[in-house]
Amino acid sequence: MGGVVREPLKDLSACGLPEALEVMGERWSFMILRASFNGLHHFEEFLSELGIARNILSNRLGRLVDNGILDREPDPDDRRRIEYRLTEKGFDLLPAMLALRQWGQKYVEGFVATDPVLVDQRDRMPVGPVCILAHDGRVLAHENLGMVARANLPSKGKDRQEGELVPGTRGWIDDSGEAAVAAE
Amino acid sequence: MGGVVREPLKDLSACGLPEALEVMGERWSFMILRASFNGLHHFEEFLSELGIARNILSNRLGRLVDNGILDREPDPDDRRRIEYRLTEKGFDLLPAMLALRQWGQKYVEGFVATDPVLVDQRDRMPVGPVCILAHDGRVLAHENLGMVARANLPSKGKDRQEGELVPGTRGWIDDSGEAAVAAE
Repeated sequence: MGGVVREPLKDLSACGLPEALEVMGERWSFMILRASFNGLHHFEEFLSELGIARNILSNRLGRLVDNGILDREPDPDDRRRIEYRLTEKGFDLLPAMLALRQWGQKYVEGFVATDPVLVDQRDRMPVGPVCILAHDGRVLAHENLGMVARANLPSKGKDRQEGELVPGTRGWIDDSGEAAVAAE
Repeated sequence: MGGVVREPLKDLSACGLPEALEVMGERWSFMILRASFNGLHHFEEFLSELGIARNILSNRLGRLVDNGILDREPDPDDRRRIEYRLTEKGFDLLPAMLALRQWGQKYVEGFVATDPVLVDQRDRMPVGPVCILAHDGRVLAHENLGMVARANLPSKGKDRQEGELVPGTRGWIDDSGEAAVAAE
């Protein structure tokens, strides 16, 4: 990529990234998020599993709730207990977290293989690299990318936002848990 | 995901993510990286395009070089000028940066469509969402993920690290720039 057409490089407001980093760029917030992805829901669980101070945990959980990443609700099994559960917005952080982590693992010197391993539930095989996909599901490397002024997009792409789901393509999973276009 | 098998939640050292955040979690480092992806190579270009102070730019470029993200070399067209170019390690940050950005763009209130747009060079259509892929290229949602102890992986997955490239599958691009398994 690169070349003649460029993003407005001074402007971070339209970029979206600073918001994402604000949410998970802080050490403890990230550790709480990771624990949530691992199935922890209760204050006392976070407290004992993370080795975090009570006041810091309370503060970071509050921020994650304020940012719409976690929902704070009474536990259905015991209404006196509070549960923290990832929202859709929270779950949507997973590709970014995993991409950052895969990058770190690839380049950390002397890195040893993690245990347990993140797998897909169907085949129980380790997941592959987080990838950039084309509108039709092709995997793209950086050499395959470019920038185009919105006015010069092909007409079917003009109303489409980068990263938007494209119904009926390989770009997402349908309800059956299979890729929407699975035949090869 | 979630459930019985969990990562060691207190331990960040095996996670890989802190290293990634260290490299791009800082505002100016991130802006320099983004400018590099947009094709900027020279100190004076970064200086004028980013609106960054000379001493901060110098410091952040130095850090990115020290971290192996940028290479610092004489410009082949003018040996007195220095060029900063992304290394393979630097280019490998792109899925993570794009995933973070797509997340921010999806959830920033009142966000307006970016211009220019990141496209694939073949069809010039906006790229799709950054996705987690299975070993065989299926797109995975968070409900499709799980944790498995390394000892309990199927035998063909035992030696494989999460995020590793899987030759001969849809998981990467071959030299022709087409997905390795392209037929559908």
